[in-house]
This record gives sequence, C-alpha cells and structure tokens, in this order.
Amino acid sequence: MSIVVVGSVALDSVYTPFGRAEDALGGSAVYFTTAASVYDRVNVVGVVGEDFPEDCLGFLRSRDADLRSLQVAPGKTFRWGGRYALDMNSRETLFTELGVFGEFQPSVPAEFGCSEVVFVGNIHPQLQLEVLQQTEDGDQTPRLRALDTMNLWIETTRDELTEVLRRVDLVLLAEEEVRQYAGTPSLRVAARQILDLGPKRLAIKQGSYGALLLGADGGYFAAPSFPLDDVVDPTGAGDAFAGGFLGYLSGRLRSGEALTERDYQRALVHGNIMGSFACEDFSVGRLRTVTMEDVEDRYQKLVGFTHFDSDWRDGGEDG
Amino acid sequence: MSIVVVGSVALDSVYTPFGRAEDALGGSAVYFTTAASVYDRVNVVGVVGEDFPEDCLGFLRSRDADLRSLQVAPGKTFRWGGRYALDMNSRETLFTELGVFGEFQPSVPAEFGCSEVVFVGNIHPQLQLEVLQQTEDGDQTPRLRALDTMNLWIETTRDELTEVLRRVDLVLLAEEEVRQYAGTPSLRVAARQILDLGPKRLAIKQGSYGALLLGADGGYFAAPSFPLDDVVDPTGAGDAFAGGFLGYLSGRLRSGEALTERDYQRALVHGNIMGSFACEDFSVGRLRTVTMEDVEDRYQKLVGFTHFDSDWRDGGEDG
Repeated sequence: MSIVVVGSVALDSVYTPFGRAEDALGGSAVYFTTAASVYDRVNVVGVVGEDFPEDCLGFLRSRDADLRSLQVAPGKTFRWGGRYALDMNSRETLFTELGVFGEFQPSVPAEFGCSEVVFVGNIHPQLQLEVLQQTEDGDQTPRLRALDTMNLWIETTRDELTEVLRRVDLVLLAEEEVRQYAGTPSLRVAARQILDLGPKRLAIKQGSYGALLLGADGGYFAAPSFPLDDVVDPTGAGDAFAGGFLGYLSGRLRSGEALTERDYQRALVHGNIMGSFACEDFSVGRLRTVTMEDVEDRYQKLVGFTHFDSDWRDGGEDG
Repeated sequence: MSIVVVGSVALDSVYTPFGRAEDALGGSAVYFTTAASVYDRVNVVGVVGEDFPEDCLGFLRSRDADLRSLQVAPGKTFRWGGRYALDMNSRETLFTELGVFGEFQPSVPAEFGCSEVVFVGNIHPQLQLEVLQQTEDGDQTPRLRALDTMNLWIETTRDELTEVLRRVDLVLLAEEEVRQYAGTPSLRVAARQILDLGPKRLAIKQGSYGALLLGADGGYFAAPSFPLDDVVDPTGAGDAFAGGFLGYLSGRLRSGEALTERDYQRALVHGNIMGSFACEDFSVGRLRTVTMEDVEDRYQKLVGFTHFDSDWRDGGEDG
C-alpha cells in the first residue's frame, strides 16, 4: 500500500461540441486512482450512494485499488454535469447534486497510515485536515503529503485552506487558483506566497500549456503538455495529472531512496502525460487502457519535444 | 548585411496598472531590430514622419542598423496608444494614428537583395508581397523568408495574406492568430492548415507560456518562456521574439552551413529570451542594454528549467 487518495467519486454528465457522456464514471479520486495505479497501489477514501453502478466498482477493483475506505452510503452518488465551449478551455457547470458526498466523513484505516504518499484532493479543507490528521496518527507518517483544491474553497474557506497548506509538502493547483489565492497577477510572486506557508514545492497546472514546478528553495522547472490533435473531454485531466505525478513519486519512494529534484521533474512530466491521456476520451475511457509502454512512448517523445542544445554558439550537439 | 525587416516604426503611449510611457520609441521593426542586432546586422525598411525624434534615429544607428530604407516623409510618425488590464495579458487600443505609415510604400534597395533573411512584419499583406518581390529580384534570393501578421489582416485581407503565406519559409504567429486564420479550435489542426500552404515551419507565440515550433514534416518542439517576476510592459515582445529567432538564424547562416532542425530549436529559445527582455521595461528600455552574456545566462538557465532525465525507470542521470 503506497498512496492514499481522498476525493470525489462521481457520475459525470459531460457535453462537448463534439459529443457527450451521461452518468459516466468520474470524480477526482477516480481520475487520480486510474492514473496513479499505473505506477503503484492506491487506497481510495471516498463515498458513493447505493445507486453506484456495480461495473464502476468492478473497474476500480480491477485497478488493484483498495476500496475498504470507499463507503457505500444510503442515498445517491455525487453527480456533476458540465458543458464545454467550442475551444474546450472554458466550461459551465450545468448541475451539482452532492447526494451522499454532502455528508461525507472520510475515515482512513490505521493500516493506511503506512502509505508513503497521501493526496487530499479537492474537498472541503476541514475534511482534508481530518484526513491528514488520521494519516499522521502513530509513529508512521506519510513521506509526502500533497493537496489540491478549487476556487470555491479559496473563496469560502480561505482560512481553513491556509491551515491545510501549512501542513503539506506539495501543492498542486491550477494557474488561476494560484493567482486567486494570492490575489496578485504575477504567478511567481503568487507562488512564493503559497510556498512561504510551508510547502516545499508547488506544481502549477496550466492546462494545454503544461505545468510548472516551483520550489521553496527557488527551484523552477517547466514541462510543456503532450500535444494532442483533438481534445475529446478535458474533465479530470488535472486529477489524472496528480495521479501521474504522485504515482511516479510513490513508485520511486518504494525504492527506499530519498526523492531528488530530478525525481520531481520527471514526476511533472508523468503528470502531463497522464493529463493528456485523460483528455483523449470521455470519463476514464482512454486512461483505463494506458500501459507503461504508452507512458514510455510519450515520455521519450517529450524528451525530443523539449530538449535543445546547451551549446548554441558553435552548433554543438551535446543537448 | 544579413537581415531585412519591414514593419512599423512608431511612437507608443502605453499605460499599465503599474506605470506609463508616452510617445516612446516603438513599432514592430524597432523591437525586431533592437533584438536581432544583438546577433547580426539589420536593414530597416520603414517610414517615419518629420516629427520623429533625432535621439530615436540615433539609437537605431547605434545598433549598427542600416537606415537607408527608413524613409522620412512629410507628416507625422505612426502613433499607437494602448492600456493593459491588471493581468497584463489583455489590452485595449486607445488610439491608432497612422500618419505617414498610412501611405507607406516600402522600397528595398537592390543591395539588400543579398540579405540572407527577410522578415516581413505586421503590415498590409500587399506590402509584404511587394517587399518579398523586391528582395527576390535578380539572382540572389534570401535564404529565409519569414512573416508575421495580425488579426486585422486575417479578417480583412485573408486572400492576400494567403498569397504571402504561400511564398514564405517561416511563419511566426500568435496562438490566437493561428486559430483565427484556420477557423478551428485545435491548434495542431490549424497549424497544419497553414503549413499545407507551403511554409516549412510555423512558430506559434504563446505569450507568457512560451512558444511552439511545428514543421511541415511533422516536427514539433516546445520552449517555455523565461520566467519573470514582474512584467512591466509586454508591448513588442512578439517582435523581439522574432528578432531573437531570426537574428540567431541569420548569425548561423553567416557560417555558411545549412540550417538544421537543431538550429531552429535553439532559435526558438533565443526568441523567448528576447521576448522576456522586451517585457522588463517600457519601450526598448531593457532590450537596448542586452549583451550576448545576458543572452547566454538566460539560455543556460532555460536548459536547467526544461531538461529532464530521458531515463525515468531507474533514476538515470543522463538528461
């Protein structure tokens, strides 16, 4: 057991200019788990209603995910509906039916406390805090605690969110969330404001542009996205990014060695790769078929897409 | 003599949330020349009015730019005014006073025909075509013809613009211009539509995200921008990008060797570097002081910001 994720398990209805999916498997914990389980075992902390389809549970089990903390509660599963604009970059929420997710009380079994990585996905900061506390009980604490959030919590529960930010090692946020939290247009100034709270690193998700990694020590790294001809459905790409990022790091931690800056840089690339797979179909349609060979293929292509000669004065070939 | 540029020479009034500059030296040919002249000699084809300040002419001469084709016409210099929003990404045009630029008839002396690089900046496509024809007279034709344009010409003179696109080797456009020309939200599909017209390469400027290079042969390369804490004024960054890109290539061509894909990749990085300098002050305030050592410093930092291990399975150190 290596990664604990807490987040939503949902049924999504997504409408794009080019297609639709209704009541399809979704939610941050699902996208995360599907991506991260390519690398390591995932313990899912979440809740579904009694209406949650058996084949969706079966799919999660097929990922070798530990579902002991996925509660099945009386009531309906969290449902979200959204419609994308023609450019696929902006979307409107059509409906949000919290169902059993509205009363969700996460419970992390003691044996998950030995997980090396804990990811508190986009839920109320108070619940994120409880999950972190539950995994910190006892002698064994996670070696890497990571957090995601969303504009709603930045607006409505800023103080509680700040408390959680102080307690994690790694923060994964979308670019606009970084600016929103810090209240400044300069991304680097905003990033430093978050890093000054305590996290060692901040990964900034920039959608089709890729991602940045900023360190409390001043470190900076930029990884462009894997280019796609067509984006079928970007829903869950940020969660799949987190899954690739933390899945890769969890695998590295299993080797027993401490994580290096290079591990984090590679992890950022793995995050982008998983984000790209998420965009290629509705729900986890493409993600569920991803193999390590698919990952390797995109990884090597990204090496070619981004590396340039360090010697530009005489046309050296050492890059 | 190695680069011919045709474009605007202007006096800009720029207002940002953090400062202002009035009647300051600007225009696409000016930003291009200031950046490109770090690498190679530039022949400026343009027009100014009799009111153009002597110290601005003196500055251009100090760049070792050939001003024989910079006409001084009776009337006023082209003036543009713009105001940036808080995020510095969007701006509104406050005024456009074409002045002598409205009747501009570019004239390229025969001796400029031996220039290796011709850049037709953002002017009416008919004038771009005339400049290209003037540089193609005789036996010697430029080894690299490059083009920029803007949304106005895509909207109002699409057919003429298409004619010019058919005649150049390299196109430099902003992301939204690529989509606008092709009429499709998929950037890669849009890029192919432009490359299918004949250009071998398309450089796509993505502002603070950096730039992409796409080839007619399917080649793909992504270069993130050089990160800045604060953007003082992004006016002219795209033209400085073009200056760095083509300036570097022109310098490479002087060596007598044919340009390789690696040269173009390095050129994209140089474009981003010059774009970053342009943003650090109003007008050419920072660009004018850039040395080759400044360029080298940002280039090596970008190597560190973007290169990652090609071997991720065992933590190899070969990247």
